[in-house]
Amino acid sequence: MAKMTPRTLSGFMELLPAPQQQMERMMDILRTTYSRYGFTPLDTPVIESSEVLLAKGGGETEKQIYRFSKGDADLSLRFDLTVPLAKYVALHYNDLAFPFRRYQIGKVYRGERAQRGRFREFYQADIDVIGDGKLDITNEAEIPAIIYQTFSALGLKRFQIRVNNRKILNGFYAMQELAEKSGDIMRTVDKLDKIGPQKVRDLLISEIALSETQADEILKFIAITGSNCEVLNALQGYAGKNEVFDTGLSELNTVVKYLAAFGIPEENFAVDLTIARGLDYYTGTVYETTLLDYPEIGSVCSGGRYDNLAEYYTDRQLPGVGISIGLTRLFYVLGEQGLLNPSLPTAPADVLILPMTEDLAPAIALATQLRQNGIRTQLYTEQKKFKAKMSYADKLAIPYVVFLGEDEINAGVVACKDMVSGEQTKFGFDETLQRIRVGLAEKNAGCVILEK
Amino acid sequence: MAKMTPRTLSGFMELLPAPQQQMERMMDILRTTYSRYGFTPLDTPVIESSEVLLAKGGGETEKQIYRFSKGDADLSLRFDLTVPLAKYVALHYNDLAFPFRRYQIGKVYRGERAQRGRFREFYQADIDVIGDGKLDITNEAEIPAIIYQTFSALGLKRFQIRVNNRKILNGFYAMQELAEKSGDIMRTVDKLDKIGPQKVRDLLISEIALSETQADEILKFIAITGSNCEVLNALQGYAGKNEVFDTGLSELNTVVKYLAAFGIPEENFAVDLTIARGLDYYTGTVYETTLLDYPEIGSVCSGGRYDNLAEYYTDRQLPGVGISIGLTRLFYVLGEQGLLNPSLPTAPADVLILPMTEDLAPAIALATQLRQNGIRTQLYTEQKKFKAKMSYADKLAIPYVVFLGEDEINAGVVACKDMVSGEQTKFGFDETLQRIRVGLAEKNAGCVILEK
Repeated sequence: MAKMTPRTLSGFMELLPAPQQQMERMMDILRTTYSRYGFTPLDTPVIESSEVLLAKGGGETEKQIYRFSKGDADLSLRFDLTVPLAKYVALHYNDLAFPFRRYQIGKVYRGERAQRGRFREFYQADIDVIGDGKLDITNEAEIPAIIYQTFSALGLKRFQIRVNNRKILNGFYAMQELAEKSGDIMRTVDKLDKIGPQKVRDLLISEIALSETQADEILKFIAITGSNCEVLNALQGYAGKNEVFDTGLSELNTVVKYLAAFGIPEENFAVDLTIARGLDYYTGTVYETTLLDYPEIGSVCSGGRYDNLAEYYTDRQLPGVGISIGLTRLFYVLGEQGLLNPSLPTAPADVLILPMTEDLAPAIALATQLRQNGIRTQLYTEQKKFKAKMSYADKLAIPYVVFLGEDEINAGVVACKDMVSGEQTKFGFDETLQRIRVGLAEKNAGCVILEK
Repeated sequence: MAKMTPRTLSGFMELLPAPQQQMERMMDILRTTYSRYGFTPLDTPVIESSEVLLAKGGGETEKQIYRFSKGDADLSLRFDLTVPLAKYVALHYNDLAFPFRRYQIGKVYRGERAQRGRFREFYQADIDVIGDGKLDITNEAEIPAIIYQTFSALGLKRFQIRVNNRKILNGFYAMQELAEKSGDIMRTVDKLDKIGPQKVRDLLISEIALSETQADEILKFIAITGSNCEVLNALQGYAGKNEVFDTGLSELNTVVKYLAAFGIPEENFAVDLTIARGLDYYTGTVYETTLLDYPEIGSVCSGGRYDNLAEYYTDRQLPGVGISIGLTRLFYVLGEQGLLNPSLPTAPADVLILPMTEDLAPAIALATQLRQNGIRTQLYTEQKKFKAKMSYADKLAIPYVVFLGEDEINAGVVACKDMVSGEQTKFGFDETLQRIRVGLAEKNAGCVILEK
């Protein structure tokens, strides 16, 4: 028979078993951390009706969308988790209690140009808090705590949550009578890291037609840096001139004020006036998170406050605040940078049992007993040479191999080999179990991410 | 602005938060049980190249496939998890250790006619063991143990794992010199439950052109019932006439022999000669699992042994055995039958903190402390009346509400209300935490499925 060469589409991540186990650990940590903050898990369809999904109009992403027909239906694959959330909240409004706090970890699809490290199918891991009409500023203050806990739980230390407030930016531009150009200005300022202040100034003058004075005012403003306290003090100098600015400054003060109570160390947080989050969507606090030793990766967790989640579906005002982690890309870059802890177990089983008797009943009973005690156990029953069996355990990095022969069965003991230390013991079931448990706890004690 | 009416496509399950929590519990149990047996989690793309996915030819499912173009690419959504597994194993053969044991819980897509309880996007939860060249019969004997543990962990008692062996059927038909018609015969016999033995006999004669004697022989054969022991004894009467039959009988004897060692009660297991699993794909042991009180639901977990997983991709012989649970449909029918335990917690949080002071710092510190101790905690900070806050906790069924006012802060205590019993306590943090933990353990003690 002619064979079809198996392949996986480019831009689609398909992991081998060991890295998949690392990915599963990361997802577990995200689920646990998000749950800890009172977010409920949601799952929405990957496919939506195109007219519903694209109600807002796709803009730049529209070309990237996987859109197709099935029968009479015009369908699209979701390209983020925010539009499906907007649809969900508008559709199920009467069945939800607000503030509605949900997390969702799911695959989204964008037909981007294939490129190393760019994915067409990738996981996003989102949390959002949605209010009905109003949403208190404390929710915006809590988000950095969640980001901090999430990355700390993954094992990172050298990261920084950078925060700004769009009202401060909008208010400032209004003071300069540049409100109408604020979108263009923010998009230009966003390039600061890449092209430097002088080129930003040039662009502001040449492309956005600002006067030299206006451009200098803007550069002076975004040059405000220092400790959180210093930045807030400098901003205080602009207060009293514009209501929106003052509201933004008050909100930013609140966010910073509760940092300590939320347990966020000062070094993991910075007020950064250059952050705007391109989208017009955000209206208050905005967040970016960068890895201090890998600035080239860009933000690994971004989001912000928005005033109107679902305006394309409902007249209700549904303000919210949320963040998103691009999980597939994060996992990829962590791997590329060698930051995934290689010493955490990735084996499919904790124990491999090698039966040494014709009758398998005692080995099966032992496997059942280990499983009932929470030990992931594989029974190896293929007809192979002993060496092949041991090399199977080696290849899969299974930490313990148990031998069960007539001698052990008659003596009521279990022969157990620690595949790392090489130590082999013969104890009764309870003691063997206890030793395996202690060993596994040690092996699992590390974090997913191991900074260099 | 004109609004687009939000909707979810028919045939796509989208759950409210409370049932979603029940679904998450079910998935957790499947993940835990599958892991316990040494299966590694896999995740493969939802989209594959059509020529790869449909290498086998789609047969009846081909019309149901979501197939579309993106640029030059001819793409399809996966319609099961078995073809992607075949591709995965053929593609990554050199990086895998065999037997390769993997589980996968993922969404698959079939554009079926919309119908109540039929889904176009649904989860399958599969396990498979793949051998390289050979695969020992013990793997087939272990599968019923995994099915038993899975459904027991979900809380079911009244279910039956029905097992047969295709070699017994093929051997029997060969004895009757009906080998060439065996596929047609099995498809007819498969209707036994629905149309009864007399109509099966009629069809065998009228449609498959069997003689009356042949039809009677077949009816006599599939009428063999009784305890496992009785069925095996009756089958022994056919032994010695056909090699394939004898191999099948020996395999079935092995599967039954190890039942007790694997801890499967006799009442949850039955040898059933009427089971064939329509597909030509299976070559040895086949499995179906039925809920005794809901036979109309059909099999909720099916599978079997196959000799050649990936023949469309590779010349290597890769035999395997696997089972699949149609999770979305199972969840749906359990809900329809009222079998989902309503007393298990479905709230997004274990504790809702209502701060009673202007300065939120003490409430935030308390939330942080609870979260560090593993308690899912929501801080409620919206400006609402007390009654509205309590009704929020009620609506979400959050089990504990904590009040933190000046008095409590000064006294170093926490006021905690059990929302079920109504009991309100004032204790220090440690004692409150302890009481909450005990209470949550009790509330979470039940099973997902509660038989009536």
